[in-house]
Order: sequence, then C-alpha cells, then structure tokens
Amino acid sequence: MDNVLVKIYKKPRLKDPILIEGLPGVGNVGKLAAEYLVSKLKAEKFAEIYSKYFPPQVLINEDGTLYLVKNELYYLKTRGKSDLIFLVGDYQGLSNEGQFELSYRVLEIAKMMNVKMIYTLGGFGTGQLTDQPRVFGAATNTEIVEMLKNYNVVFSSGEPSNGIVGAAGLLLGLGMNFFEMEGACLMGETSGYFTDPKGAMAVLKVLVSILNLKVDFKDLEARIQALNELTQKMQEQVEQKVRKEDLGYIG
Amino acid sequence: MDNVLVKIYKKPRLKDPILIEGLPGVGNVGKLAAEYLVSKLKAEKFAEIYSKYFPPQVLINEDGTLYLVKNELYYLKTRGKSDLIFLVGDYQGLSNEGQFELSYRVLEIAKMMNVKMIYTLGGFGTGQLTDQPRVFGAATNTEIVEMLKNYNVVFSSGEPSNGIVGAAGLLLGLGMNFFEMEGACLMGETSGYFTDPKGAMAVLKVLVSILNLKVDFKDLEARIQALNELTQKMQEQVEQKVRKEDLGYIG
Amino acid sequence: MDNVLVKIYKKPRLKDPILIEGLPGVGNVGKLAAEYLVSKLKAEKFAEIYSKYFPPQVLINEDGTLYLVKNELYYLKTRGKSDLIFLVGDYQGLSNEGQFELSYRVLEIAKMMNVKMIYTLGGFGTGQLTDQPRVFGAATNTEIVEMLKNYNVVFSSGEPSNGIVGAAGLLLGLGMNFFEMEGACLMGETSGYFTDPKGAMAVLKVLVSILNLKVDFKDLEARIQALNELTQKMQEQVEQKVRKEDLGYIG
Amino acid sequence: MDNVLVKIYKKPRLKDPILIEGLPGVGNVGKLAAEYLVSKLKAEKFAEIYSKYFPPQVLINEDGTLYLVKNELYYLKTRGKSDLIFLVGDYQGLSNEGQFELSYRVLEIAKMMNVKMIYTLGGFGTGQLTDQPRVFGAATNTEIVEMLKNYNVVFSSGEPSNGIVGAAGLLLGLGMNFFEMEGACLMGETSGYFTDPKGAMAVLKVLVSILNLKVDFKDLEARIQALNELTQKMQEQVEQKVRKEDLGYIG
Repeated sequence: MDNVLVKIYKKPRLKDPILIEGLPGVGNVGKLAAEYLVSKLKAEKFAEIYSKYFPPQVLINEDGTLYLVKNELYYLKTRGKSDLIFLVGDYQGLSNEGQFELSYRVLEIAKMMNVKMIYTLGGFGTGQLTDQPRVFGAATNTEIVEMLKNYNVVFSSGEPSNGIVGAAGLLLGLGMNFFEMEGACLMGETSGYFTDPKGAMAVLKVLVSILNLKVDFKDLEARIQALNELTQKMQEQVEQKVRKEDLGYIG
Repeated sequence: MDNVLVKIYKKPRLKDPILIEGLPGVGNVGKLAAEYLVSKLKAEKFAEIYSKYFPPQVLINEDGTLYLVKNELYYLKTRGKSDLIFLVGDYQGLSNEGQFELSYRVLEIAKMMNVKMIYTLGGFGTGQLTDQPRVFGAATNTEIVEMLKNYNVVFSSGEPSNGIVGAAGLLLGLGMNFFEMEGACLMGETSGYFTDPKGAMAVLKVLVSILNLKVDFKDLEARIQALNELTQKMQEQVEQKVRKEDLGYIG
Repeated sequence: MDNVLVKIYKKPRLKDPILIEGLPGVGNVGKLAAEYLVSKLKAEKFAEIYSKYFPPQVLINEDGTLYLVKNELYYLKTRGKSDLIFLVGDYQGLSNEGQFELSYRVLEIAKMMNVKMIYTLGGFGTGQLTDQPRVFGAATNTEIVEMLKNYNVVFSSGEPSNGIVGAAGLLLGLGMNFFEMEGACLMGETSGYFTDPKGAMAVLKVLVSILNLKVDFKDLEARIQALNELTQKMQEQVEQKVRKEDLGYIG
Repeated sequence: MDNVLVKIYKKPRLKDPILIEGLPGVGNVGKLAAEYLVSKLKAEKFAEIYSKYFPPQVLINEDGTLYLVKNELYYLKTRGKSDLIFLVGDYQGLSNEGQFELSYRVLEIAKMMNVKMIYTLGGFGTGQLTDQPRVFGAATNTEIVEMLKNYNVVFSSGEPSNGIVGAAGLLLGLGMNFFEMEGACLMGETSGYFTDPKGAMAVLKVLVSILNLKVDFKDLEARIQALNELTQKMQEQVEQKVRKEDLGYIG
C-alpha cells in the first residue's frame, strides 16, 4: 500500500490557481474558515487523499453509511485573475513523517496544477476569549509581509515563538524550498478551547479582501451570535453564583 | 523482511465469496463471533498472515510448542449462493500504519478470490451490562443500510460518534474506495469490560440470519449461562456486603 | 542507510551449526549465559550488526575509545557433531518493527551458514528470589519438547502466559515459519530485578548438557557466591533493623 | 518524499577538511560552540538539510518571514593544513531511525568532500553549576585519546556511563565503521539547565587550540559575564530571603 493514496476525479484547467489550506488545528479556525468558503462559494471536489498517516478509522454519516477519513481538494473558477484550490479534511497526518509526506504530496498535486501561491489558515491560540480577534501572519518573503500589513495582518516579531506546526507551516516551508511557491499563513486569534467561528471570521475577512471574493457571511455570523449568547449566559451564571456566595459569606 | 508475510496453503475456488472479519477488539465481540463460526462450521484454513506490525511475540500452546502471533484466513463452501472467507487472529496491527497495511493486504487477497461483500464484526462499548444487547450497524451504501434494518440492526444517526477504529472499519473503508467492495460492520452492544459472549451471540444471530446459515449455538449459550451465573453471584455478594454494613451501621 | 547494516569479517565453514541467542532481557539471563559461553569457550567474532533500530548511541570503553551499539555473531568449532554460532549484543531492537527486521536479518545469515537448530536463552521473571531456579522451556515441535524434558526443563501448560517477547521468541517463530529451522527457548527462573547469574547458571547447565560442552563454571559460581553474600548481608541488616524496632516498641 | 532532502548550493574544493558538529543537546553546549565559530570565522553556507525526521514546523524570523526547520553545512578555508566544515541546525532527528538516517546522510556528504576527521561538540550534564567546567572526551582510537589528553581533555574511565546519545555519538560511531573516518567528541561540563556559554567556552578553548584557530572570544565572554551577574543576583536574593526568615524565626 502506498503511504498516500490519491483519487483524482477530475483534472480541471485552472488559471494561476491559489491553494488555500484549512485543516483541523488550534480552535479549528483554519478548517472552519476553509470549509465555509468551500460551502458558500460552491467549490467542486476534484480529489480525495487517503493515507496510512491518518487514523485507521471510518466515520459514520447521518444515514448510517460510513466513509474512510480523508483530506479533500476542491476547486473554484473565479472571475478574478486567480482560480482557487481548497485543501480541507478530517485530520492532519498523525506522525511527523506523515505530516511531511502528506504536505509534500499535496504540493506535488498543486505543482501539477501550476499553483504558485499558497494561503494556509490557522488559529493563534492565546488561552483567552477575545471579542475582536486579530489576524497574525507569517510569509515566505518580505513582499508578502508588506502586502499583508495593508490588510491589518499583525506581524509580531518572531511570533508565534514556537513557529507554526503542521500542514499550515509545512505547505509553506516545503513549498518555498522545493516547489517554487510563495505564500503566507493567516492565523486568527482564538482561545483555542473550542471550534471558534470568531477566529475563522477574522481570517476570512482578510482572505476575502485579499482575493477580492464575495462571500455571504450570514451563517457564520449566526454561529458567532449563538456562541456569544452561550458565553454570556455562562458568564451570568458564574456571576450569580459568585454573588450568592458573597451573600452567604456576609450573612 | 516484507512488512506483511503471507503463507498461502491452498487456493480454493469459491463462488461469490463473502469476507467475514472478527479480530480482537471491544469486548472481543468480533473475535469471539468469527472464531465461533469458524469452529462450528468447520471452516478450513488456507492462509496465515505474519507481520512486523504485530507484537514481536510467540505464544505457547498447552503442549509446550510455540507459534508466532498471526492472523488467519479460513474458507467455507456453502450450499447457498455465497461461499465464506473468515479473517481471525491473535492481534490487530499495533500502529496506525500497520492497521492500514494489514487491511490493505487482506483486501488484496480477498480481491484475488473475487470477494465483493464484507461483513466486519465488532463490539459497541457502552460501559454498562445489558441483558439484551442490540446490534448497531454501519454500511458502505444505503441499500445495505436498508437491508440490515430488516434484521433489526440499529442505525443511530452518526453513531458510534467517533466512528469505527481498526480493521472492522478499515476493511470497509479501503474496500469501498480501492477494491470495489461493499459491506457492513455489525457491532454488538457490550460493556467492553471482558470477552463478551452475549454481544457475540447478538451479532451472530443477525449474521446467520442474513447469510442463511445453520449454526449450533449450544456452546455459546452455555458460555452466556456461565457468565450470567458468575455476574449474579458477584451481585449477590455485593448486596450481602451492603446489607451487613447497613446492619453494622444501625447496630 | 539500510535498516540493518552487517559487517562480516569472516565466513567460517561450519558443520551443522546451532545458533545460540543471548541478548539483554529479563534479568539479563540470556545475555549473561551466552556471553559467558563466548568468553569461556573462546568463540571467535565473525560479524557485527548495526541498525537504526538500536538506540542512536555510542558507548565508552575504559580507555576512552567509543563504539557504536551493536549485536555480534561469534562462532565456535567443536569436536561434537555441531559447531556453534552465538548472537550477543548491547541491545535488542527498540521498536516492534525493529525486533522483526533484526531477527529476520540474523536468520538470513544463519540460513546462509546452514543453521537448522536454534536455542534462545532468556529469563522467566517471577518477581521472587529463588535458590534453585528452574528452567522453563518452549519449543517449535513436540519432539524437542520431549527431548528437553529429559534435561528437567519445565513445560508448564501455556506458560509463560503472555508468551515470549523479543528476539528469543522471534528467532524461533520466524525461523520455523520462514527458514526451516527448529529450536527451543530456555528460560531461567529469575526475580528479574537485577542481572541474575543464578538464572544464567541454571540455563547454562541445561544447555551445556544438551550440547555436550565442557565449560569452566568457576567464574560464574564466584559471581553467584558474591551475590549470595550480598543478599544475605542485606537480609541480616533488615532483620537487625526489625529487631531494634521491636525492642524500641517493647521498651 | 525522500526521508532526507539536501539542497547543495555550492561544492567547495577543500583541503583535508575536518567536520565539526554542534547541534542542539545538553545545555546546548555543542550548538552554541559551533555556531559561535561559524559566526566569528565567517564560515560560508554550502548546503541545507531538510527532513521528515525533524518536527513538522516552520520558525518565524524577526521580519515576519518563515523558514522550515533544518540543519546547515558551512565551510571555512583556513591557512592551516585542514579546512573546516560545520554542521549546525535547529534540531536533531526526533526518532531513533531519524537520528541514524540524518547522521548517515551527513557522513555521505562529508565522505564526498573527503572528510577523514570529525569533532563533535556537546555537553556533559552534571546537574550542578560549576565555575571552571572541564572538557570530557571520547574518541574513535587511542591515538586521539592520547593527543587530547595533552589539551587537558578528561577521559574518565567509561564515562559518560550511558555513552553519548544523538548526532555527537552517531557521527563518530557510523563514521568509524562505515566511512573510514576517525574523530572525537568534546563534552563541556554543564549543569544542563540552560543554554550554557561557559560549557561552550571550555569546549571551544580546546578545539581552537587543537585546530590552531584564531577566534575572538569577546562576545562569548560578555555572555558568560551577563550570566554570572544574573546567577549572582539570584543567589543574593535567595540568601537575603534566608536571612530574613532566620530573623523572623529568632524574633
């Protein structure tokens, strides 16, 4: 069995395509953001990636059918100068070797499709809730750094201090060294405690603006609204409890 | 050394064979069920599978001889429209990669023998003892889902929520994607705390009914009976102890 | 780099050679026994085995020079009907895959040298000190089991219950399945808490008797004597302490 | 993807080059020492080594650009009889197999460049702060051991007792067995609790003396001075706190 098995359903001809990655990670920010785009922009699936580096696991659909865990590639033809390719999926590679092999394989496919630019999406975990998550960046060259600053992307010298781990980092690191690709990682500030629609929204706002895309954010806003209500309710309960204890203590 | 070493003793010609898998897992339900069929139906061994993905271990027989841990393939010619192949063994692959490689190798053999349908048997661990274990299912397509519902197999939307891990999942997931095979996983409800004959019985009743097999369940019923007596005795002891403590407390 | 690197210094012509394995393990019984034979019988080194499955480590000699951890093969020409090959070394393979690959590689070399019989030496850990350690056995066929019973080797039905793990098991398990070799594992009873010369002596007494070898046991007896004195002194100190505490308690 | 990817920028012709290794390890002594030489002697980079055995990680520069973690090879032409090659980097291989493969690959490159002598630099962790760290050694042959004793390198019989783990050991162990190279490991005494410039200085003093190099130690001395002040301040605070507690106790 090959380490990575790719099923290609279609070989679309794309103009100057840009690869956008969003796999599970900190706060699932990247996954949420990329899958939201795939869904709202009605991108079309053209390939599936299976691998022994994913867990040996099938997942169950609502209707009782099962599917093997995988990554997926979608494409979108745009009216702009660049078409888009999306990498989304159930898991990242579980081992270090797996991470490298999977990213390398994706880059081989991307190279074949003439990708020269990559955006990887992820979360910047802070352990704290925030109302206005910032978007941190790192890029393969200083021109992209400067360009991204115009979109209010934050470059905080040497941060994240332990770098970027996983596909969001590797696609760029391997891409720039072995595939003549440039790119950037956009990281939405997030507590990292749960799948975070606010972090995803922050990242998407930047990306959509750069790529000049039109995206309907209604569903994502609703999700943020629901989360806001939930956290507010939890906070009220905590405060009520504290007040009660205070009374008890005074009494 | 090859990662997986197969010793084929015989190449039986089988009509439209169905692969039935039962390897160690939750409550050993699948292993117990499949090995019971192999034993009662007097299926014949035709291949052994050795691998560096199993533990580096030999086991000792009653007579002092040893054997290297392995998986085994048996076949059974039936009077029905499908002959049967059974996959049983001492272990599943220990690593993720091993799980994938072993399942893939089994499917290569199954393909060679013209298998188009797979039943994998396993346990659905609930952490609770139950008298009437249900059988949960997941299948590669909706036709099989519907067919299994006729046999009272339960399809509980999206459950098990973390999918099916190991050979019982992989054989189906890899089979449907790379070997043109369909199939289903039958999972007997089980506490998961010990090798569970009740869970195995539940699964076997469904399977035997689907495949229209005649199986003598006496031995398995005896095992269930013995287990019932044991758990009842344990329960009585617990209750007695509780009553004594109650008296002591009152006294 | 190959997974296993073999440096062969010499290709001795041996008559009907028997392979004897003694690598680190429970109580280091096998290692101690095999290395004692190599030393006392002045066996000659003919090959070294290096591997990425050993730890990435060099060890330091008394004179400040270093050497890469390895396994070694020695041979001994005897006056009997079989010459001997010894497998000794610093480590066993660290991973499951490594264990398999290393044993397989050793068997390839053994096959090349026409080995048909293997004795693997090890410890049977009981967690208890014993004065007269027994020797437990397991063999590849019942003839060898019967033969070994004549040498007071104990075959306790199905014991060790978790089989034999590591090279002592694999050489036999792989040997019988893929190299047409037979053999047995001799396991000296040992607490397993320290390198155990008593367990090694027990195993050696059996092996030497089977192979009709003449071995000077003086050094090993001295080591046992030293250990006996040490354990006796420790026991006296414990008893003294207990007596003192008793007096204190009475006083 | 190859397990190890080498980008060679230049193939310098070197006279009788000596390989000097300093990768992260105990007290980062080796890394600090080797990188100091590279910087002060203005050695030139000629190759980068990427590998799936490093963590799947990119690191971020001050300017917001990122780079994939790697090892690097530098060369220095000298006026002496031997030119120099330096191996430095962000990480050592994470797995045992990775350690072996990476060292082996480096030795292949070194062989190609005609290296016959290796110095590996590391720390000898003692868990204790020391003012005058000694330099311990281990070498591939007794001539080098004797030579190093002239430079006050300490050879303490059989120490370090668990040998040398990682690239500092493997390059020598593999080098002497498979690449006809000799060499030594120089280990600076260090607490091992932090990146230790004193240990690095001790090692460098020996190495520079052996290789007859001129190195400006001002920056390293400044770093040691800063560390001394820091540790003295911490010690004073501890003593002050102890005195206060004493007074409190007396009062």
